[in-house]
Order: sequence, then C-alpha cells, then structure tokens
Amino acid sequence: MFDQKMANKAADNLRYVRERRPLVHNITNYVVMNYTANALLACGASPVMAHAAEEVEEMVSLAGALVLNIGTLSLPWVEAMLKAGKRANALHIPVILDPVGAGATRLRTGSARRLIEGISIQVIRGNASEILSLAGEESGFGTKGVDSVHTVDQVAETAILLAMELKTTLAITGVVDLITNGEQICRVMNGHEMMGYVTGTGCAATVMIGAFLAVCPDPLEAATTGLSYFGLAGEKAAAEALGPGSFQIALLDALYGMKEEELRLGAKIQV
Amino acid sequence: MFDQKMANKAADNLRYVRERRPLVHNITNYVVMNYTANALLACGASPVMAHAAEEVEEMVSLAGALVLNIGTLSLPWVEAMLKAGKRANALHIPVILDPVGAGATRLRTGSARRLIEGISIQVIRGNASEILSLAGEESGFGTKGVDSVHTVDQVAETAILLAMELKTTLAITGVVDLITNGEQICRVMNGHEMMGYVTGTGCAATVMIGAFLAVCPDPLEAATTGLSYFGLAGEKAAAEALGPGSFQIALLDALYGMKEEELRLGAKIQV
Amino acid sequence: MFDQKMANKAADNLRYVRERRPLVHNITNYVVMNYTANALLACGASPVMAHAAEEVEEMVSLAGALVLNIGTLSLPWVEAMLKAGKRANALHIPVILDPVGAGATRLRTGSARRLIEGISIQVIRGNASEILSLAGEESGFGTKGVDSVHTVDQVAETAILLAMELKTTLAITGVVDLITNGEQICRVMNGHEMMGYVTGTGCAATVMIGAFLAVCPDPLEAATTGLSYFGLAGEKAAAEALGPGSFQIALLDALYGMKEEELRLGAKIQV
Repeated sequence: MFDQKMANKAADNLRYVRERRPLVHNITNYVVMNYTANALLACGASPVMAHAAEEVEEMVSLAGALVLNIGTLSLPWVEAMLKAGKRANALHIPVILDPVGAGATRLRTGSARRLIEGISIQVIRGNASEILSLAGEESGFGTKGVDSVHTVDQVAETAILLAMELKTTLAITGVVDLITNGEQICRVMNGHEMMGYVTGTGCAATVMIGAFLAVCPDPLEAATTGLSYFGLAGEKAAAEALGPGSFQIALLDALYGMKEEELRLGAKIQV
Repeated sequence: MFDQKMANKAADNLRYVRERRPLVHNITNYVVMNYTANALLACGASPVMAHAAEEVEEMVSLAGALVLNIGTLSLPWVEAMLKAGKRANALHIPVILDPVGAGATRLRTGSARRLIEGISIQVIRGNASEILSLAGEESGFGTKGVDSVHTVDQVAETAILLAMELKTTLAITGVVDLITNGEQICRVMNGHEMMGYVTGTGCAATVMIGAFLAVCPDPLEAATTGLSYFGLAGEKAAAEALGPGSFQIALLDALYGMKEEELRLGAKIQV
Repeated sequence: MFDQKMANKAADNLRYVRERRPLVHNITNYVVMNYTANALLACGASPVMAHAAEEVEEMVSLAGALVLNIGTLSLPWVEAMLKAGKRANALHIPVILDPVGAGATRLRTGSARRLIEGISIQVIRGNASEILSLAGEESGFGTKGVDSVHTVDQVAETAILLAMELKTTLAITGVVDLITNGEQICRVMNGHEMMGYVTGTGCAATVMIGAFLAVCPDPLEAATTGLSYFGLAGEKAAAEALGPGSFQIALLDALYGMKEEELRLGAKIQV
C-alpha cells in the first residue's frame, strides 16, 4: 500500500541531514522563529534567522537552503526575501516558500506572487487555501485567517496544473499531504490532528523540507520525505501528549529521537 | 459565596468559542506571539498575527475580535494598531487593549492613551500599575518595568471612576482580578502565583478575553468569564507543574482540556 | 579540584538575585525573546524587552543591567542599542553584549565592533568563533552561521589579550566555559551537550550573567558564577529530559528550583 522505496529515501535523507548538519537560513515570521529554529536543531540541521537587507545575501551564501515565510510580513522583509532569494538562485541554493495566509489579504497574496515571480523557488508549502490563492482562483469559499477551508483532494487537479505553470513543486499539507511537481504526485498519510492545535507546525513542516532539500537535490523527494518524517514525529508525539502544550514539546523530542529505521518502517507515502 | 450564574456563563462562553472558533487578530509584542497564539488555539479560537499597515484593515475585517498589545511597541506598530482599531470600530468588531508597561516610559503611557483616545476599546486588561498610569494618577509608588507594584484592592475605587471616564471595561489582574465597567464590579479569585513566573501569562489572559468577547457581546461578562477560565486553567496546571517551564506547557494543556462542566464548578467569581 | 570560594559566591549571587529581583532590560533577538524572558523570571529576576529609540533610555534607567544581543539585528535596533548603552554607561548600569553570529557576516561583525567602540561593556559572552571575530583575527577556520567551529582552549591566549585590549571581561562558552578579564582566568565545567540542541541557550546564558551582574559588581565573578548556575541547571535538566523539547522546559524548571546549597556543592569552577 505504501511505497517502501520512498520510505527508504526518507530514512536516508534524515541520516544525511544528521551527518552534514546543513545551515538553513530563515527569513520567517515572529510567531514561529523559536519553534522552527528548535525543530531544525532537533532534526540535526543548523538554523540561522537573519532578515536585514545588509546581510541576507552574505548569510544565504553560507547556507544549504533558504526558507522564506510571510507569516508576519511587512514590505522591508519582503524586499529582503527577494534579495536573499536572488542570491540563493545565483548560487544554486534551494529556496522554499511558505505563503502563510495567502488569500487572506491582498498584501499576502501579492507578496507571495512577487516572490514566485522574482525568484526560482524549488518548493512551496502551504495549506490548500493558501496554494489555491496562488492560482488566482476565485474559489468561492471564504478565507479564514491563516487556516485552510479546503481539503487536499479538492485541490489536487489544480495543484498539478499550478505546479506546471509555476515550474515548482507544491506541497499541500492537510489530513493527507499532497506533493506534486506537475508530473508526479506523492501523498503522505503521516501526521496527527493535534498539529492543528499548535501554532507553527505548518511552518515547522516547511523548515523540515528545507533541511531535506539541503541534502537531496530532488524537490519532490525532499518535500515528500521531509513531510513524512515530520508527520511521523507528530504521531509519536501525540501518543504521549496530554494536550497541545505537551504535544508541541514532545514533537521536538520525537524529531530528535526518531531512529532512521523507525522512519523506514513508519513512513506512509504513496507515489 | 461565588456567583453560579456567572460561572454558568463562563462555561457557556467557552462552549461558544469552541463551536464558533472565532478568528482573533493580534497586533502584539514579539515576546508572547507564539504563546498567545498557542493559548488561542488551545481554547478553541483561531489566531492571526498581522501588523503591516498595508493589511491590518483587511485582516481585522475577517476577525471576531482585535487584540492590541504594546509590549514591544514602536511607532509604526502603534500606527497600525490605530488603523486596525478604527476599522474594527467601523465594523463593530470588539477591541481589547493590553497596555503592557504603561507607566514605565512616556512612550508606553502616551501610546496607550493615544490608542484609548483614537479607538473605542471594549476591554482594557492590565495590572494595577498599568491601569493607574492610564488615569494619569501620580501614585507615588515606584514603577518597575512591566510588573505591578500595586494590589488590586488599592485601585478598586480609581478603577470604577476611570472605567466611567474612559467609557470602557477595565480588567485589572492580580491575586484577585477586578473587572468593572464603571457601574458593576466583578471579582475573579481563580489563578495561581506561578503565573507570575512565566512571561506572557498576562498577555495570554488578554487574548482569552478577546476570544470570549468574540462570542459574548457584554464586555463585563466576557472579561470576567474569560479570566475565570484562564485562572482555573492556571490552577490545574500548577497542580501538575514542577516549575515555571512545565507550568507554561501545562497551562496550554489545561486550556485545551478544560471541560465546560469543570469551569461551571470551578469558576470563583463574585459579582 | 574546583574552587569552593567561587562556588560559595555563586550561591550568594543567586540568593541576591532572588532577594532583589533586578530588572534586566533586553534589546535582543526575536528568536529568543520568550525564552530569555522566562529564564530571567525563573532565576528570580524581572525581564523587560524594549527596543524603540523613543524609550530605551528611559527604560534602561529603571534597570539593574542591560543585555544587548544582535541575533536578528537591523540598523535601527543597533542604533537603539547604542543609545541605551550610552545611557547605561552614564548611570553606571552594567552592560552585557552577546555578539550572535559575529564573524558570519560583515553586518554582524561590524555591529558588534560598533557597540564595543561606542559603549563601555562589562561582559561579552559568545562562542569561540564569535569572540575571535571581535579580534579581527583571520582564523582560517570557516564560519557556519551562529555556531562555533573552535574549542575554548584554542582561543584562551587570544581571549586574554583581547580582554585586555577591549578592557572588558570575555565569557567564551563551550564544553568548558572560559572567562577572563585579561588578568585572571576562570573556567566553568558545568553544562551539558543537550544545550547545543536548543536555540537560545547561549542567549539565556548571557541574560543569567546580566542578572548576576545586577547584584555583583565584579564582572569576572558575575560571569563565572552566572554561567556555573546556568550550566548546573542544564545538567539537572538533562537528567530528566527525553530530548531537546523537554530539555528546554526542564531547564527553566531547574533554574527556578535550584537550591542555593545545590549550587554551592555543584558548581565546577576553576580559578
């Protein structure tokens, strides 16, 4: 039922992250900075947060991946993202975008599109509403802040077309995660509903993709395996947690403690 | 001894929050963004943090309540608060202010007053020192950063007059919380001293009021019941915690796990 | 083997912090604001975060110590640090600098040097790479974001010379912490490797020094005893933690729960 070859790759990529400890440069939102930095450390990567226009080009040149996240965006931060992204492109450093809240305001939708037009982005991770908003699709569903009102299955076809159009890999997370580069589709069944009760779990999923992309050149594989690892850690954390507070903490412990063999056996990926 | 009618309302309001999952728009401080977002999720609400002048009016129009918090203020953020608050007023969306550190510096006291003058604010929550500073009262007590040096009882009379003058509801938190709209007074005896050892518990109390105000049109009732819920969660968390770290986490679990019946029985409110 | 006199001072300084509850003013990075505020509360101090140019001079005048941290710096924040630092100097309030990531970008190295030239700084805490970068030494080692690539022993001699040149106390943290004012050297053997898997433990070590410096006029003693207290708390936390998530939380509990007698017995300091 699940693809063992991709599960093996998940375990391999986790091992590479731990061996190589890639630096992941984040220009991200205030809410999740601490949590995503800790998630990166827990998985074996090395995080740095830097947003000043004066240093982002230099900082990204030291990194194995660049993560852009518009969760608490403002215009100077978007400019810094563009600057860092262009340098990353020139140096062939992969770029991951998390368009938090795209669709909720014109600033968010417009900024996400500016980033997509100005930078070659290897993976965009968002919920279904956020990804739909990048398509310019008038979905008719209401938008509610940064939380999605669509299921992944409702947007599968749009996602494939959109990934082709944008020449990128889309990772749409939900109960089932859908990852597509416009040609192939992967689905990840790992995860737990408790993730919806902790802020920044989506953003943490994004930085996992960043860490995996720093050691794996294929965006579809990096996104799929990174999300499987993160989702499986969520399942383990939920088994021990008493509520969202202890879940948030147990998730970091689970990312850190995950054995590669556990991931090989526990990854629920369909290709 | 305690008011059962108000305790019942606390349980009802908690149920409404969980059923309706109101979006609470926060323009708040960097220190507590993660924690207050998690507190809102734990109680059943949906948080969004957005501060850019270009989007706050659009974002607040999607929200059930707007929370303004000056804990790490700067002038552009205060301008965004004014902008969002005016739009909220126009749309009859309730506004809650947390004047963190008012009284400590002229910027904080002056900004709190600017917000109060520029916006119709339904509830202001602060410690006694912060609230006194809004009265312009030269109290003769020293101020120490963002922590209060007054007890709630010392300021009860001033609070009533001030609430009348400002045409708002004041929620003064301390060992006993005092809530007044200038006509009525409620007191909440829930809470635990461990809250003083975790940063952002005051700010989290404020966002609870925000969530309750999104489902309850009466500011006095929303503030009183919201604080009672938060305080009771604090009592439950303290019973399990080994120190402020585990308390911080257990508090989120307790907000999430609180049964409506528990709150009905455990709310310690005097009207 | 270990210096009992300094261990006794560690316990005394911890008691002074708890008795006097000094206000520590932080102009620091977004990633660690919540955690360092909680670390300060846990040790018995009172934190405030304030960065607006309009209020930093007033705020620092209320404080017992000023902590400057360039972890997510931008030019306006560096200006505010200079302003606050100069006022602190005028009022004889001690200043502690954490030059996060110095050496990684010119903005960071240059800003750290601007602060050192513009302000009299009592203690600078960093890892070996960061401290080396202040010496302008071209070390030949690569720099990797904000994580050090040097051991403390490799930089001991340079540190002594640099402390003399800069007329400050340097606290270089690593497996063994080295603290020198250019004349004397102390070493702290407390700590645990798990600290490297939690973001902000270095920054939290810095604020501990800030709290101790607010009650102890000797920078060498304050830095040494503060780091010993923090390191011992790390050892206690590691004994209970399942991974970096629970370690982060247990560390706050351990700071709060540390008995002065425990520190007297557990401090591993060489003078």
